[in-house]
Amino acid sequence: MFEYSRAVYYYETDKMGVVHHSNFIRWMEEARDSFFNAADLAYTVTEGHGVLCPVTDVDVKFRHFAAYGDVFTVRLEMIKYTGVRFRMFYSIVNQDGAVLMEGESGHAFVSTDYKPVALPKVIPERHELMLKLMQKEKIGSE
Amino acid sequence: MFEYSRAVYYYETDKMGVVHHSNFIRWMEEARDSFFNAADLAYTVTEGHGVLCPVTDVDVKFRHFAAYGDVFTVRLEMIKYTGVRFRMFYSIVNQDGAVLMEGESGHAFVSTDYKPVALPKVIPERHELMLKLMQKEKIGSE
Amino acid sequence: MFEYSRAVYYYETDKMGVVHHSNFIRWMEEARDSFFNAADLAYTVTEGHGVLCPVTDVDVKFRHFAAYGDVFTVRLEMIKYTGVRFRMFYSIVNQDGAVLMEGESGHAFVSTDYKPVALPKVIPERHELMLKLMQKEKIGSE
Amino acid sequence: MFEYSRAVYYYETDKMGVVHHSNFIRWMEEARDSFFNAADLAYTVTEGHGVLCPVTDVDVKFRHFAAYGDVFTVRLEMIKYTGVRFRMFYSIVNQDGAVLMEGESGHAFVSTDYKPVALPKVIPERHELMLKLMQKEKIGSE
Repeated sequence: MFEYSRAVYYYETDKMGVVHHSNFIRWMEEARDSFFNAADLAYTVTEGHGVLCPVTDVDVKFRHFAAYGDVFTVRLEMIKYTGVRFRMFYSIVNQDGAVLMEGESGHAFVSTDYKPVALPKVIPERHELMLKLMQKEKIGSE
Repeated sequence: MFEYSRAVYYYETDKMGVVHHSNFIRWMEEARDSFFNAADLAYTVTEGHGVLCPVTDVDVKFRHFAAYGDVFTVRLEMIKYTGVRFRMFYSIVNQDGAVLMEGESGHAFVSTDYKPVALPKVIPERHELMLKLMQKEKIGSE
Repeated sequence: MFEYSRAVYYYETDKMGVVHHSNFIRWMEEARDSFFNAADLAYTVTEGHGVLCPVTDVDVKFRHFAAYGDVFTVRLEMIKYTGVRFRMFYSIVNQDGAVLMEGESGHAFVSTDYKPVALPKVIPERHELMLKLMQKEKIGSE
Repeated sequence: MFEYSRAVYYYETDKMGVVHHSNFIRWMEEARDSFFNAADLAYTVTEGHGVLCPVTDVDVKFRHFAAYGDVFTVRLEMIKYTGVRFRMFYSIVNQDGAVLMEGESGHAFVSTDYKPVALPKVIPERHELMLKLMQKEKIGSE
């Protein structure tokens, strides 16, 4: 599985003394961008074609607190791709291997006026890369 | 249902031109705090008793974009309370009545060293208020 | 002076137990937007004319901590306007009148490709409103 | 000068299409933490001694926009240290060497009940490290 890792920032904590839960949603995005960059599917290129990629849903369980001083690792993979939508799975662990969060996010391709678009039609070469990525994920998870 | 409302802030938008999805998770918290304040269950008081109340899970669907200039309303209610955990339902709409987001969040009571605690045991008077709140919600939703 | 007020959000605190200083910069923006809305100079309208209004500098002193449970008030006024740039002064106090922060921010008008523009030239009617606002501020401060 | 570098995150942008200015204040903190970690002056250790280190003032000029896709570098140094307070200078550049921001921040040492403390008195060994760091900075800048 692809991995993205960094240290917790001080401003990500709240008065409970640990990372505010909303930041895990942001870490998922950081990891996802890193994942797609590595697959030659940088989001800046997709946007350059006039295609945006909003989050359609988030379903996560927080298992353990993250503290300032921790280094977290997001392990993620694409678990579904339809040409119009895709779905990611995430597991976030800390430096001791404790699972901090597990969950999924859904995504859709839309035009700059926020209408759904089919990737195979509007950016066929990126559709091919997405298919390859799903293929690789399936093989990798066997 | 309880309602919490305010205008979108400029810094809540991202380069897609609409509100970044992570901020909906923060709006849920704002609305929840307002809900509990109105029920005489202010979070500051609970914390004063050495009881924290972290989010254990979030499951939300984003239905429609929120824009700068919009005024959103979070409609929310408690849908479960066990003495150790509780669960909230949210529906966020804009000024035109369009549903922006729907979802739920789970919560647990823990001590300041992050161990689970039973509210009936550690703050019985707040447990009573929680029970009344659940009762009211059930009647209100009939 | 114009006033903008609201309660502190939980997610604005950090592990020091008080509001993270970066949020004061965001409160300045919230208050500024409210100030311009009240003067019929809503930022959405300015953007509708293809004119953006980035922050060019920030110079603030943090005097006192802000806590969750506090209600802050931003008192602000425009202290300079040149047609190309303007400057705001802010004093943020809490519910007990304690000064939390004092400072200034600078702003410039730019086109959507980030080139400086002169407001009198591109949106003369808004320039007139800005002049009136400066006039009012001067009278108000006498 | 010490350098701290990373890519811009998508959620750091706003609807103007560039990084929201408040995030530069957060980048300063990230860089400062990295700077002190490298000098064996990790903030977690200081906090472990019951000493907090809030920001007392920020004075920054924004020179150039930062975009999603950019990699920024914060160059920073300590420019003053009195035992009770210290002061940092920052210059943030992008991958093309364009200066994005220049500025300073002030800091004070306080106890966990937010009263000023003298570092030489409460954590003498960290005071020694701070003095060495200032010495090194002076030599480095000659």
